[in-house]
Amino acid sequence: MWESLVSAINDRIAAINFADFISKGIGILIVIIVAGIAIRTGSFIIARFVSGRSSKMNLPVEERRLKTLASILKSVLRYTVYFIAGMTILDTLGVPMTSIIATAGIGGLAVGFGAQNLVKDVIAGFFMLLEDQISVGDYVTIEGISGTVTGIGLRVTTIQGFTGEINIIPNGSITKVVNYSRANNKAIVDVSISYESDIDKAISVMKSVGGKLMEENQNIVEEPNVLGVVSLGDAGVTIRMVTTVKPTTQWSVERELRKRIKEAFEQEGIEIPYPRRVVIQKEA
Amino acid sequence: MWESLVSAINDRIAAINFADFISKGIGILIVIIVAGIAIRTGSFIIARFVSGRSSKMNLPVEERRLKTLASILKSVLRYTVYFIAGMTILDTLGVPMTSIIATAGIGGLAVGFGAQNLVKDVIAGFFMLLEDQISVGDYVTIEGISGTVTGIGLRVTTIQGFTGEINIIPNGSITKVVNYSRANNKAIVDVSISYESDIDKAISVMKSVGGKLMEENQNIVEEPNVLGVVSLGDAGVTIRMVTTVKPTTQWSVERELRKRIKEAFEQEGIEIPYPRRVVIQKEA
Amino acid sequence: MWESLVSAINDRIAAINFADFISKGIGILIVIIVAGIAIRTGSFIIARFVSGRSSKMNLPVEERRLKTLASILKSVLRYTVYFIAGMTILDTLGVPMTSIIATAGIGGLAVGFGAQNLVKDVIAGFFMLLEDQISVGDYVTIEGISGTVTGIGLRVTTIQGFTGEINIIPNGSITKVVNYSRANNKAIVDVSISYESDIDKAISVMKSVGGKLMEENQNIVEEPNVLGVVSLGDAGVTIRMVTTVKPTTQWSVERELRKRIKEAFEQEGIEIPYPRRVVIQKEA
Amino acid sequence: MWESLVSAINDRIAAINFADFISKGIGILIVIIVAGIAIRTGSFIIARFVSGRSSKMNLPVEERRLKTLASILKSVLRYTVYFIAGMTILDTLGVPMTSIIATAGIGGLAVGFGAQNLVKDVIAGFFMLLEDQISVGDYVTIEGISGTVTGIGLRVTTIQGFTGEINIIPNGSITKVVNYSRANNKAIVDVSISYESDIDKAISVMKSVGGKLMEENQNIVEEPNVLGVVSLGDAGVTIRMVTTVKPTTQWSVERELRKRIKEAFEQEGIEIPYPRRVVIQKEA
Amino acid sequence: MWESLVSAINDRIAAINFADFISKGIGILIVIIVAGIAIRTGSFIIARFVSGRSSKMNLPVEERRLKTLASILKSVLRYTVYFIAGMTILDTLGVPMTSIIATAGIGGLAVGFGAQNLVKDVIAGFFMLLEDQISVGDYVTIEGISGTVTGIGLRVTTIQGFTGEINIIPNGSITKVVNYSRANNKAIVDVSISYESDIDKAISVMKSVGGKLMEENQNIVEEPNVLGVVSLGDAGVTIRMVTTVKPTTQWSVERELRKRIKEAFEQEGIEIPYPRRVVIQKEA
Amino acid sequence: MWESLVSAINDRIAAINFADFISKGIGILIVIIVAGIAIRTGSFIIARFVSGRSSKMNLPVEERRLKTLASILKSVLRYTVYFIAGMTILDTLGVPMTSIIATAGIGGLAVGFGAQNLVKDVIAGFFMLLEDQISVGDYVTIEGISGTVTGIGLRVTTIQGFTGEINIIPNGSITKVVNYSRANNKAIVDVSISYESDIDKAISVMKSVGGKLMEENQNIVEEPNVLGVVSLGDAGVTIRMVTTVKPTTQWSVERELRKRIKEAFEQEGIEIPYPRRVVIQKEA
Amino acid sequence: MWESLVSAINDRIAAINFADFISKGIGILIVIIVAGIAIRTGSFIIARFVSGRSSKMNLPVEERRLKTLASILKSVLRYTVYFIAGMTILDTLGVPMTSIIATAGIGGLAVGFGAQNLVKDVIAGFFMLLEDQISVGDYVTIEGISGTVTGIGLRVTTIQGFTGEINIIPNGSITKVVNYSRANNKAIVDVSISYESDIDKAISVMKSVGGKLMEENQNIVEEPNVLGVVSLGDAGVTIRMVTTVKPTTQWSVERELRKRIKEAFEQEGIEIPYPRRVVIQKEA
Repeated sequence: MWESLVSAINDRIAAINFADFISKGIGILIVIIVAGIAIRTGSFIIARFVSGRSSKMNLPVEERRLKTLASILKSVLRYTVYFIAGMTILDTLGVPMTSIIATAGIGGLAVGFGAQNLVKDVIAGFFMLLEDQISVGDYVTIEGISGTVTGIGLRVTTIQGFTGEINIIPNGSITKVVNYSRANNKAIVDVSISYESDIDKAISVMKSVGGKLMEENQNIVEEPNVLGVVSLGDAGVTIRMVTTVKPTTQWSVERELRKRIKEAFEQEGIEIPYPRRVVIQKEA
Repeated sequence: MWESLVSAINDRIAAINFADFISKGIGILIVIIVAGIAIRTGSFIIARFVSGRSSKMNLPVEERRLKTLASILKSVLRYTVYFIAGMTILDTLGVPMTSIIATAGIGGLAVGFGAQNLVKDVIAGFFMLLEDQISVGDYVTIEGISGTVTGIGLRVTTIQGFTGEINIIPNGSITKVVNYSRANNKAIVDVSISYESDIDKAISVMKSVGGKLMEENQNIVEEPNVLGVVSLGDAGVTIRMVTTVKPTTQWSVERELRKRIKEAFEQEGIEIPYPRRVVIQKEA
Repeated sequence: MWESLVSAINDRIAAINFADFISKGIGILIVIIVAGIAIRTGSFIIARFVSGRSSKMNLPVEERRLKTLASILKSVLRYTVYFIAGMTILDTLGVPMTSIIATAGIGGLAVGFGAQNLVKDVIAGFFMLLEDQISVGDYVTIEGISGTVTGIGLRVTTIQGFTGEINIIPNGSITKVVNYSRANNKAIVDVSISYESDIDKAISVMKSVGGKLMEENQNIVEEPNVLGVVSLGDAGVTIRMVTTVKPTTQWSVERELRKRIKEAFEQEGIEIPYPRRVVIQKEA
Repeated sequence: MWESLVSAINDRIAAINFADFISKGIGILIVIIVAGIAIRTGSFIIARFVSGRSSKMNLPVEERRLKTLASILKSVLRYTVYFIAGMTILDTLGVPMTSIIATAGIGGLAVGFGAQNLVKDVIAGFFMLLEDQISVGDYVTIEGISGTVTGIGLRVTTIQGFTGEINIIPNGSITKVVNYSRANNKAIVDVSISYESDIDKAISVMKSVGGKLMEENQNIVEEPNVLGVVSLGDAGVTIRMVTTVKPTTQWSVERELRKRIKEAFEQEGIEIPYPRRVVIQKEA
Repeated sequence: MWESLVSAINDRIAAINFADFISKGIGILIVIIVAGIAIRTGSFIIARFVSGRSSKMNLPVEERRLKTLASILKSVLRYTVYFIAGMTILDTLGVPMTSIIATAGIGGLAVGFGAQNLVKDVIAGFFMLLEDQISVGDYVTIEGISGTVTGIGLRVTTIQGFTGEINIIPNGSITKVVNYSRANNKAIVDVSISYESDIDKAISVMKSVGGKLMEENQNIVEEPNVLGVVSLGDAGVTIRMVTTVKPTTQWSVERELRKRIKEAFEQEGIEIPYPRRVVIQKEA
Repeated sequence: MWESLVSAINDRIAAINFADFISKGIGILIVIIVAGIAIRTGSFIIARFVSGRSSKMNLPVEERRLKTLASILKSVLRYTVYFIAGMTILDTLGVPMTSIIATAGIGGLAVGFGAQNLVKDVIAGFFMLLEDQISVGDYVTIEGISGTVTGIGLRVTTIQGFTGEINIIPNGSITKVVNYSRANNKAIVDVSISYESDIDKAISVMKSVGGKLMEENQNIVEEPNVLGVVSLGDAGVTIRMVTTVKPTTQWSVERELRKRIKEAFEQEGIEIPYPRRVVIQKEA
Repeated sequence: MWESLVSAINDRIAAINFADFISKGIGILIVIIVAGIAIRTGSFIIARFVSGRSSKMNLPVEERRLKTLASILKSVLRYTVYFIAGMTILDTLGVPMTSIIATAGIGGLAVGFGAQNLVKDVIAGFFMLLEDQISVGDYVTIEGISGTVTGIGLRVTTIQGFTGEINIIPNGSITKVVNYSRANNKAIVDVSISYESDIDKAISVMKSVGGKLMEENQNIVEEPNVLGVVSLGDAGVTIRMVTTVKPTTQWSVERELRKRIKEAFEQEGIEIPYPRRVVIQKEA
C-alpha cells in the first residue's frame, strides 16, 4: 500500500501537464487582451452615442449631465467585461462554476426576485437622467409628493417639500412625473357671488382687478382672463378667472388676486355669499 | 522539466490548425453575408407591411407617422440580426457564451424582471403609434391626468395640463385612453328650480336660450336639447340641457349657457333655489 | 506553414460533403411539403370548427363575425407552421438556434414578461368576439366607462361616452362586461313624500300616471309597477316605481315619469318634502 | 465531383432503412392502440368518479349537470391523450420538437403568462359546476354585482341585474359567491321613534303588525321578531324587526312591513321623528 | 427491395429481446411491491403523526376531525406513490415522458400558474382544519363577511350570513379569521348625555341598570363595568359601559341595556341629547 | 423461443452483481454515518449560534424562547439532512428521481407557487420569534387588528380583541407591527373651548387637574403637560393635554382626565362649546 | 456465490484508489488556500471601497456606520466564499449535489418565492444604511407611520410614535421616506376672518405677532411671513402665515402662534368667525 501511495504521488507529479499550463496561460492572456480592447472600444462608442443622441434629440442636456450618463454607461460596460473575462478565465482553469451556480439556485431565485427592485430603480433613474424629465430646483409632484427637487440619483430622487421635510423616493416607484417648472403656469381664482348679484358687473370688476395687477406684477405673462360661470351652486354663482404666470408663481398671484377681488367687490357692493338657506316655518 | 516545457510550446505551435482557421474564417464570412441579406430583405418587408397595413385599416395615419413606425421596426430588426450574427460568430470562435450566461443567471433574473417595465413601455408605445390612439394637440384624459398631448414617444407620453404643468407618463402604465378631440362633444348644463316653479315654463325658457346661443356661437353643432327632469332632489327639481358642440369647446359653451339661463330665469321669475328647510318649532 | 495552409484549403474543399447537401435538401423539401399540407388541413378543420361551434351554441353570431374568427385562427395557424418549419430548416442547416436563444435569455425574460399584456389582450379579444359579448352599437359599461361601442378589435375596444369622448380600452384589462342592449331594461323612479301624506293615495296617483304614460310611450313594455315603501327616511317616506322599457330607453322614461308624477302630486296636493327639522328652542 | 454526387444519391437511397421504417410503423401502431385503450378506460373511470362523487357528497346535482361535468372531463382526457400520442409519434419520426419548443421559449413565456387567466377561468368554472355553488335562476351577489344567474359556463357566468342589464363575469375573477336562493332569508326593518315615545308600546305595535301580515302573506316563514333597540341615535331610538321569509322575498316583505308600521304608528300616535335640533339663542 | 423488407421484419422479430422483457417485468413487479409497502408504511406514520400532534398541541380536535385529516393525508400519499410508481414504470417501458412534458411546457406554464389558486385553497384549507381555526356553528368574520360557519371544506368554506344568504369563500383567499365563538365577548354600550347633566349620576344609574340586568340575564358573565367618559363631543359627553357576556350574545345584551338605560335616564331626568346648536343672531 | 426465455432468466440471475450490491451497501452505510455526524455537529452549532446571538444582541429573549428557536432550527436541519441522505441513497439505488421530478414539473409549479404563502408565513414567524417583536400578553396593532397577543406560532399569530373575539393572522401577511407594551404610552386629551373663553385660564385649570390626578393615579409617569392650541376650529379653540403613562393605561387615564376637566371647567365657568352658527336674517 | 462475494469485497478494497485519494486531498487543500486568500483580498477591497465611497459622496456618514457597512459586506463575502469552497469540495468528493438540488426543486421554488421578502428587506436595509437616509433620533414618516427612529437594522426599522408605541417596519416594505430632521421646517398657521373684517389689518397684526414671537423663541429661524389670502371660503377669508423653524419644532411654534394670534385678534377686534348662514324666511 505504501508503495502504491508513493508511486501515485509520483504519477500525479508526472501527470502535471506543463504544455497544458502554457496553453491555458496563453488562453488567459488572450482573454485579458481582448477584454482591454473591448472596454476601450466600448467606451469610445458610448461617448459618441451619448453626445450624438443628445444633439439629435435637441435635448437641453447640459454638459454635466452628459458626462454623468457617459460615465454610468462606461461603468456598466467595464463591470460587464470584467465579469465575462473573469468567468472565461475560471472556466479555462476548470472551476465548476455552472454547477456551483446551479446549486446556489434556490437562494439565487430569492436574491433575483429580491433584487429586481434595485434594478428597476436604476433603469428608471437612467431614463430620468437621459430624458431630462426633472432637474434639481424644479417644482414637481411625484407619487403624491410635491416639492423642489434637491437631488437626482440613479437609485433615488430627493424632493424637499414646502414645509422643509426631505422626501426620498426610489426611482423605480415613480410612475408619473408632474413638472411645474418647464412651462408657464396658470393661476386660477374661483369666486362665488349670490344669485341676486349682477354677473356682468362682477366679471368686469374682476377683469379690471386683473388688468391692474398685471401692470404691477412681473410674473403675470398674459392679460388675466375671466372664463365665465363655472357652476350654479347652492350658495351662489361661481365665476372663474385664469391668469397665465411664470412657472411656480401661480400661488402668490392667486393669493394677491383673491385679496384684491374681495376688496374690489366690497367697494362695488358685490356680495361674496355666506351659505344661504330658505326656511319655511311650520307648526308642529 | 525544461525540455518537456520547450517541447510543449513546440507542440502547441504545431497544433495550431490553420485549416481550422480558414474554415472558421469562411464560416464567419458566410454569417456576415447572410446577416446583410437578412437586414435588407427584412427592411423591405417592413416597409411594405407598414404601408399595406395602414391602407388596409383605413387609418388616417399621416406620412410622418408611417415613417416613424417603419424606422422603429427597422431598428429592431437591425439590432436583432446584429445580435444573432455576433452570437454565431462568438460560438464559432469557441467563446463559452452559454455557460457565461448561465453563470450570470442570478443577476440576469433580476435584470430581466427589472427591465420588464421598459419593454412594456415600448410595446405599449408602439401600438399607440400604430393605432393612432392620440395625436399631438389632442385633449385627452390618461390615468386621471387631463390635458393636451405635447409629445408621444416610444417610452413616455407627455401631456400639458390646463394649469400649464408638464405630465410625463410611461406608456406601459397607460391602460385606458380617453380622447376628446376625435368627435363632437356634448355640453351638459344641469339647473335646479324650486318645486313651486313651473317645469314646462323653465324648459321652454332653456330651449329659447339654447336656440339663441346657437345662432351666435359657431361651436354649437346641433340645436340644444332639454332632456327633462333628471332628479327630484332636496332643493328642487333638476333639469338637464344637452348641446352637441365641436370637440373641446364644451366647457366654454357650458359656461355661456349657465350665465344666460340664470339671467333668463331671473327675467322670467323662475327661481334657482337656495337650499330649503322646513322648520317645525317645538317647546323643550 | 504555407504548404500546410494550401493543403488545409484543399482538404476543406474535399471535405464538402455533396451527399450531405442533397440529404439536407431532400429533408428541407419534405419539411416544406408537410408544412403546406398542415396549413391546408388545419384551415379546413378551423372552418368546420368555427361554423360548427356557432351552430351548436345557438349564438346569434352573424356571418361576418364568423369569417373574422376563422381568418384570425387561420393566421395563427399559418404563422405557427411557418415558425416550426423555419426552425426545423435552420436546425437542419446547423444554425445553433438553441444556444442563441439561451444567450438571449435575459432580454427574452424581460420581453416575455413585457409582452404578456399584449397576449392577454388578444386572448381576451378573441373570446369577446367568439362569445359575442358586445356588438358595435350596444350601450355598455366596461371598467367604469359607460357608452356606445364603436369598435371591437383583437387588442382594444372603443367606446364613445355620452359626452362624445372616445374611450380606448385594452381587451386584457376588461374583467366585467355590463351590456344594456341585450334585454329590456327597467326605469326606476324613487319619490319621497312627507310622513303626513297618505301613502295609498300617492301610490294610486303614481299608478295612474304610469298607466297614462304607457298608452303614449311605445318604449314602455309592461304596465308600470309601484313596488311600495323602500325607506322611512329623514325627510319622509320614499316610494319606488318600476317600469319595464325597451333597452336603453330607461333614462328618458324615468325623466318623463319624474316630471308627470311631480305635476300629478301637485294637483292632488301630495307634498314632495323639502328637508325638515324639528327645532326645540332652549335658553342659553 | 459529378461522380461523387451520383454515388452520394445512390448511397442515400441505399441508406434508407426499410427495417427501420417497419420498426417505426409498428411503434406508431402500438402508440395508437394504447391511446385508444387509455381513452376508453379513462372515460369509464371518469363516469364512475363523477356519479360516485355526487352521490357521496349528497349534492343535489341534477342529472344534466352530471353529464356536463363528465363530458368536460372526457374532453380534457381525450385532448391530453391525443397530445401525448401525437408527441410520441413525432418523437418516433425524429422531429426535433424539444429544440423547436425551446426556441419558441420567449414567445411561449408571454403566451403562458397571457393564457393563465384563461386557465384560471376554466378551473374556477369547473369547480363552480362540480360544487353546484350557483344554479341558473338563483339570486346571487358576485363581485359586487347582484342579480339573477342566467348562464353558467366554463369560462364566464352571466347575471341579469334587477334593471335588466346583462353582466358577464369571467369565472376566474370570482372570489366570493353570495347566494340568496339556497336558504330562507330575513327581512329587516329598522324604525326610529323619538326619545319621547314609549319604546314598549312601539314594540308591541310592531309585533301586532308583523303577526297580522304573517297571516296574510305566505312568504313569511316564522312569526316576525322585534329584536329591540339597536341604536340611541341623533334623531331618536331605532328599533329593529326581523322576519324570516322565503328566499328572495325579503324586499317585498320589508316594503309591506314599512308601510304598515308607519300607518300603525300614525294610528297609535307614535311619532317617526324628523331630525331634531336643540337651538340655544345667544346674543352676538 | 422486397427481400430486404422481409429480412428486416425477420430481423425485427429476432431482435425482440425476451430477456429484456422478463428483466423489465421483474423491474415493474418490484416497483409495484415497493409502492405497496410505501403506502402502508406511510399511512401508519400519518395516523401516528396526526394523533400524536393533536395530543401534543392540546388542541380540542374532536375525533371526527382527526379522521378527516388523516384520510386527507393518506389520499395525498396514495396519489403521490401511484404517480411515482406509474412514472417509473413508464420510464422502464421507454416512453419518453420527459420530452413530452418539456414539449407541453408552454401550456404547462399557463396551467401551472392558473392552478396555483387551487393549490393555495387546498393548503390553506388543510391548515384551517389542522389548527381547528373555525368549527361548524362558530360565528366568524372572514374577509368582511360575518355569519355562522355552515361548512369547512378543503377548497371552500361556507358561511351563512344573518339575513340567511349563503357565502362561499375559497380558503386561499382567507387571510384573517375572526372567531367570536371561542371566548366570552364584550357588549359595549355608548350613551351620550348633555354637558349640563351630572356625569357621576349617569354613571351610577348605568351601573345599577347593569347590576339588575345581570341578575336576570344568564348570558352576562361579569358585573357590567362603566369605563367612563370616552369623548367630549359636539352633542354632549359620551359614557361607555362594557359587559362581559357569553359568546355571540353581546348584541342582544347591548339592545336590552340600551333600552333599560334610556328608560332609567328618563326616570332620573338625565337627558340623552338631541344635536344642539348655539345660534347667534346678527343683522344682515 | 422457450429456450431463449430460459437462458434469458439464467443470464439475468447470473448478471446479478453481488459485488455491486456490497459496494452500494457500503455507500449507503457511509451516507447514514455522515448524516448522523452532520445532524449532531449542526445541532451543536445551532445551540451555540442562538445563545451567542441573543447575548450579542442584548435581546431580552427569555430562556424559553431561546429553546424554541433552537429546537425549530434543529428540526429544519434534521429534515434537510434526512432529505439529502434519502436522495443520495435513492440515487445510489438507481431510482430515476430527477426525471420523475421533471415529469412532475407542471404540478410542481402550481404547488410551488401555491405553497409560497406557507413558506412566507414560516420565515416571517421565525424572525418575529428571533427578534422578539411581540410577546404573549402584549397589546398590539397588527394589520388593523388591535388586541392582546394570545399566541405566537411559526405560521399564525393569535390576537384577542377588546370585545373578546379571537383574530388569527398568518405571519406572512403581517407587514407592520405596532407594539404598545414595550414603552410608556401617552394619554392625549383634546378639549374645545369657545372663542370667548380665556385660553390661559383653561390651560391653568387643565394643568391643576392633571397635577391632582397624578398624585392619585400610579399609572401616570410624568407631570401632565398642556401643549397649547392645536386648532382654531369652527366650534372654538382646541387645547391639547399630553400625559405620559405606563403602557396600555392611556385609555383609562384619558377617560378620567376628560371627566375631571369637564367638571373643573364647569366649576370655573369655562364653556365647552356646542357647535355655533351666526345666523343673518334676510327677507325673501 | 460465496466466492464471488468474497472476491467482490477483495476487488472493492483493491479498487480503492489511493492515488485518487491523494489527488483529491491536494485539490481540497488548494480550494481551502484559495478561499482563504479570496476572503482576505476581498475584505481589504471592501474596506477601501466603503471608506472611499463615503469620502467621495461627501456623505456625513459617521465612523460607526462605516464600520457597520464594512462588516456587513465582509460577512456576505465570507459566507459566499465558504459556500463556493464547500460546493467545490463536495463536488470533488463526488456527492451528487446538482441532482439533489434538482430534486429539491419544487420545495426550492416555494422557498425561493417565500424568501424573496427577506432578501428585499436586507437589500433595502443595506441601501438605507449606505445612503444614510435616516438616523436614530430623526423624526420621520415612513409608510404612514410618523415618529422618532429608535433603531435601523438590516431587516427592520423601528420607529417610536408620539404616543409611545413601537412600530416595527420591514425595510423592504418602505417605499418613500420622509425625514423632517435634515433641514429647517416650516410652521404653517391658517386663520379665518369674516368677510366683514379688514384683511390688511389682520395681516399686519399677524406680522407683529410673528415678529414678537421671533424675538422670544430661539427655534424661529427667519422672520415669519404672511403669505396672503389662501381661500375665500364659506365662513370667511383664510389667511396663511409661514414661519421657518428649526427641525421638528414647527408644532410647538404653530401652537404658540395660534394662541397669540387669537389673543391679538381679540384685542384688535378682528373676528375669527363661527360658521355663518344667511336665513331667508318664507311662509309655508
